[in-house]
Amino acid sequence: MFADLRARAREVLEPAHWDYFEGGAGDERTLRANEEAFERLRLVPRVLRSTGPRYLGTTLFGTGLRTPILVAPTAFHRLAHPDGELATARGAAAAGTVYVVSMAATTPVEAIAAVAGPWWLQLYPQPDRDFTAALVRRAEAAGCGALVVTADSPVFGRRERDHRNAFHDLPPGLCCENLRDATGAVRDIVMDAGLGWAGIDWLRGVTGLPIVLKGVLHPADAELAVEHGVSGLIVSNHGGRQLDGAVATADALPAVAKAVGGRLPVLVDGGIRRGADVLAALALGADAVLVGRPVLWGLAAGGADGVRLVLDSLSEDLDRVLALAGFRTPAEVTPDAVATR
Amino acid sequence: MFADLRARAREVLEPAHWDYFEGGAGDERTLRANEEAFERLRLVPRVLRSTGPRYLGTTLFGTGLRTPILVAPTAFHRLAHPDGELATARGAAAAGTVYVVSMAATTPVEAIAAVAGPWWLQLYPQPDRDFTAALVRRAEAAGCGALVVTADSPVFGRRERDHRNAFHDLPPGLCCENLRDATGAVRDIVMDAGLGWAGIDWLRGVTGLPIVLKGVLHPADAELAVEHGVSGLIVSNHGGRQLDGAVATADALPAVAKAVGGRLPVLVDGGIRRGADVLAALALGADAVLVGRPVLWGLAAGGADGVRLVLDSLSEDLDRVLALAGFRTPAEVTPDAVATR
Amino acid sequence: MFADLRARAREVLEPAHWDYFEGGAGDERTLRANEEAFERLRLVPRVLRSTGPRYLGTTLFGTGLRTPILVAPTAFHRLAHPDGELATARGAAAAGTVYVVSMAATTPVEAIAAVAGPWWLQLYPQPDRDFTAALVRRAEAAGCGALVVTADSPVFGRRERDHRNAFHDLPPGLCCENLRDATGAVRDIVMDAGLGWAGIDWLRGVTGLPIVLKGVLHPADAELAVEHGVSGLIVSNHGGRQLDGAVATADALPAVAKAVGGRLPVLVDGGIRRGADVLAALALGADAVLVGRPVLWGLAAGGADGVRLVLDSLSEDLDRVLALAGFRTPAEVTPDAVATR
Amino acid sequence: MFADLRARAREVLEPAHWDYFEGGAGDERTLRANEEAFERLRLVPRVLRSTGPRYLGTTLFGTGLRTPILVAPTAFHRLAHPDGELATARGAAAAGTVYVVSMAATTPVEAIAAVAGPWWLQLYPQPDRDFTAALVRRAEAAGCGALVVTADSPVFGRRERDHRNAFHDLPPGLCCENLRDATGAVRDIVMDAGLGWAGIDWLRGVTGLPIVLKGVLHPADAELAVEHGVSGLIVSNHGGRQLDGAVATADALPAVAKAVGGRLPVLVDGGIRRGADVLAALALGADAVLVGRPVLWGLAAGGADGVRLVLDSLSEDLDRVLALAGFRTPAEVTPDAVATR
Repeated sequence: MFADLRARAREVLEPAHWDYFEGGAGDERTLRANEEAFERLRLVPRVLRSTGPRYLGTTLFGTGLRTPILVAPTAFHRLAHPDGELATARGAAAAGTVYVVSMAATTPVEAIAAVAGPWWLQLYPQPDRDFTAALVRRAEAAGCGALVVTADSPVFGRRERDHRNAFHDLPPGLCCENLRDATGAVRDIVMDAGLGWAGIDWLRGVTGLPIVLKGVLHPADAELAVEHGVSGLIVSNHGGRQLDGAVATADALPAVAKAVGGRLPVLVDGGIRRGADVLAALALGADAVLVGRPVLWGLAAGGADGVRLVLDSLSEDLDRVLALAGFRTPAEVTPDAVATR
Repeated sequence: MFADLRARAREVLEPAHWDYFEGGAGDERTLRANEEAFERLRLVPRVLRSTGPRYLGTTLFGTGLRTPILVAPTAFHRLAHPDGELATARGAAAAGTVYVVSMAATTPVEAIAAVAGPWWLQLYPQPDRDFTAALVRRAEAAGCGALVVTADSPVFGRRERDHRNAFHDLPPGLCCENLRDATGAVRDIVMDAGLGWAGIDWLRGVTGLPIVLKGVLHPADAELAVEHGVSGLIVSNHGGRQLDGAVATADALPAVAKAVGGRLPVLVDGGIRRGADVLAALALGADAVLVGRPVLWGLAAGGADGVRLVLDSLSEDLDRVLALAGFRTPAEVTPDAVATR
Repeated sequence: MFADLRARAREVLEPAHWDYFEGGAGDERTLRANEEAFERLRLVPRVLRSTGPRYLGTTLFGTGLRTPILVAPTAFHRLAHPDGELATARGAAAAGTVYVVSMAATTPVEAIAAVAGPWWLQLYPQPDRDFTAALVRRAEAAGCGALVVTADSPVFGRRERDHRNAFHDLPPGLCCENLRDATGAVRDIVMDAGLGWAGIDWLRGVTGLPIVLKGVLHPADAELAVEHGVSGLIVSNHGGRQLDGAVATADALPAVAKAVGGRLPVLVDGGIRRGADVLAALALGADAVLVGRPVLWGLAAGGADGVRLVLDSLSEDLDRVLALAGFRTPAEVTPDAVATR
Repeated sequence: MFADLRARAREVLEPAHWDYFEGGAGDERTLRANEEAFERLRLVPRVLRSTGPRYLGTTLFGTGLRTPILVAPTAFHRLAHPDGELATARGAAAAGTVYVVSMAATTPVEAIAAVAGPWWLQLYPQPDRDFTAALVRRAEAAGCGALVVTADSPVFGRRERDHRNAFHDLPPGLCCENLRDATGAVRDIVMDAGLGWAGIDWLRGVTGLPIVLKGVLHPADAELAVEHGVSGLIVSNHGGRQLDGAVATADALPAVAKAVGGRLPVLVDGGIRRGADVLAALALGADAVLVGRPVLWGLAAGGADGVRLVLDSLSEDLDRVLALAGFRTPAEVTPDAVATR
């Protein structure tokens, strides 16, 4: 659906920045596997179900959205467009969905919040607990709806494109605005290999916001997540940017959803490029999905309007696909909508 | 078998019309999957069965045909050849088979009927019930043998080629002749998302013609179809033109045939390009098959003679393949003629 | 192994003759599937089995051969080389194996017999029983060791290359020398769709020669073959030249071998191109194999010496592969030499 | 990871030597299958396991190594770099791992030992038992830590590249320095098809060194190896250089590891090119792995530094991948780290 938009984004971006957004870890096996897993799935539609007008509305943690398609957290939006995260926030708001702001945003959350609809903050809990708690307070004060804790990043993945491009630092004038400490200095994000479930327990003590754990691929971790009181899960392999060789999210989703057994909302990202992929994700057990790269293509190519175009196109395609498969709402989608092999 | 004919059709057609006939929805995954599913199947022939002369004759709803290969409904034949549906009707009659006239034919059914052998009418039941009933009466009066109700189209599929080509309207002089209302004005076909089983029940009350439900892929819908008194089923994904990602018909057929359990004739279309595909479809549970695009290639390249050539070639190839696999008639074909994996 | 030899053969042959020898039926799916099935198989060697010198000797119907690799019947050898079947016979004799002479040989069996080692005659039983019986007598008198009855040819396969090349007749001076009747006139070979098991019973009454049934792919036919008293089976799809779409022989072999249960020798042809393929065939239940096209490559490129080179190379490669897999003789090969998936 | 290094190695090597190092037997099916088997595997990481700093240290036969990645035995290092095996030994020592010296080394073991860290000697037991015993004594005297007995080579594999290149002999000045007999003459290595388990029993009587059996792919041979008192196993197909068509090592490993049941260390080589492959091998039952060709690329491109770079890069990548998958040590890796299909 987005071939032209993607080509336009590639044109307007610095090659090294394109590679940063588009690339994955290692040989990019997981990056490819994510898309291929959805492409391989086959749908089994139902007919004559009077699917009338569809209703895509979805409620997550008490917030009503117009669509089950959310904006996944991705870093450095001012590399993609001068308006950066503000454009993304406006586009997501116009589309009636949640924008998950990356901890590595190049715009302060307060400024984002001023133009956003519902938004959540993605968080790498830092070894400096006080600093982490202060950032959580900032987010709460700005109206953040949930914390998305990235669990798949004890260390950085090996991003070969960035090595080749020697892309290590943001250009002058850009920085991670939400990593300023009390003195105004900008800290580096620390990938904390020491992070464990105790870190999640600590965070739950610090904030009343829903905690959504991102990066779960193993059903045993889904079970632990429920036990540790998180509010939701995102089945994710970080868009193929961390562990190259990791299972595709469409392949991991069913076992995770089964382990959760409806006790929490389960979201999924990675390789979702069309309405049929969303439908398949719902059939495999997801309650909602997130999209990352297509939003960046829209952002680069058209700012806030581009972001909205991507999100609206996906929702419109989901609407069509729901009708064609015989459903009126995302919640109606049943596992038999995907063929078993 | 038809590579040359297909190339010739491509040559003579306007590129946008070629794309209209040849293309599918979305990324055309289902379009490709239909052909690939048949190509992947492997046959296990029997030997020394004195297969003497074969007999392809098949009876459907009381009508005897010379072959189990029917003409699938496809729209706008006057785009493919000046003689349009009249040529298709003549070719099908010469080949001794049923022509399923599309509701979007560019020739009135009365004119088609005047030159056709056995013919059925494909129908999208319109929200305007009176208009629909009037069309059914017209078809009955013209000698229609059955109504083929398309069930897979609550909304239009996303046909990217047509968007790209800006192909939205028929050229001046052509229209859907069977959509004229009492005043002679031509209506647009409405894809009715509200259509449900009640619409089928209504139609059964309006006509005594056999109703054949087209677009069934899920065995639960096959069961419902039997319960709602339809006379036959067509396992179809609309040639990959509606729900992109839908299961290939060869993959969906066995479960549907099993659900029907012989209570109704089961037909199948999508990706059938050679006699071996017909044999495989019979082994997987079909009673007969329909072919769409190859008929259009024949029509474009050679009018009525081209249509007959395609149909006769397929029947001749089926005859050969039946002999080579150890069968004398379509009805003799057993499930073990296809290898399990 | 034979890439250079194959290229050389292609060079020296008339293109239409190359296509005749090399091509298959329809879209050549089975032709490709035969080779691919062997290429996909994986071997699980045993180690430290003191495999000392290997011994490839094999006995079939009382005749001792130096190798379990036989020459499959193929037609018209004088199209491939001026010495025709005489060269093939000499090459096979030098390699110590059986030459299965095609009924469509371009040399009389008496002349072949004069230079051959052990040889069998391939037979399409003709509707004219007297003529068939007379040919059997000729073969017996010339010293034929067995009759190979082709069971997979009730009609001709659709060979698209031959149609395209308009290859229908042998060039002047060449004919099927063994199809001369009492008057010396050469008959056409009739593919007899009426042939059944009764034809096999009749043939057993006419001759005391072992009857080997060629073209069995279905285990039920293997069972019938045993019941009808044949002496051996060849799992074959006619090198992909009859029913396009038929299962690859390596895929069909295990079920046939299981049905036979050691009551008869089971041979296989189709796609065997290297020693590892022979080993795999033995592991899947074959007692011996036949090769067709590689022998033709050798014949075209080098006459009798070329034939011998092909056969000796294959046997040498089998010898090596047996050692590497931990076996000393073909008979020692066990099913676990092929990996299950 | 090593694309640039490999390209550099290809540049500096004589084409025939490149082919010797890089090629495999026959059609190189097993050569490709080894890499593809690892590429196909999908990992299922665990999260939030406080993987802090990792520790790759591994103990094999009482020797502590800094990494579970060893140097596989490969021949003729002086073809790859003037410093030959001395460079490899220095690189491996710097990386803190075992160097398995090939019996076909172009440098005497005494010279290698003088610069090496822990090293083992790969051995083809020769039919001349006295000569074999003398070589074992030489190795013992030089400080060899274990004997790696190659079990997969009763005969030479068919290396088509070497035939094509007419690569049969080492250039003047190079020879197999460890095959000198008492008179100083250099013997040819004999592939002994007569070698059996009795040869292993004999060797155990001759030396107290641990015997590691290399080339085991069948679980029954693993069981026999335990019964015959070997100290370890290497699941190997000789890098695809012996039996073409042999199962990929990643596919053979689980059954072998299961048969061993922890009674001996199980190592594996073949197709390991990145940290994720090592992790997968550990999950499939290996205790350690060996790499061959990448070490040769490093050696050709950069001598001892190149060897160290390859080994350190792999260990660093393993370290990262362990963290990303949720493990702190190789021994912690569990079977569920690899997805089943």
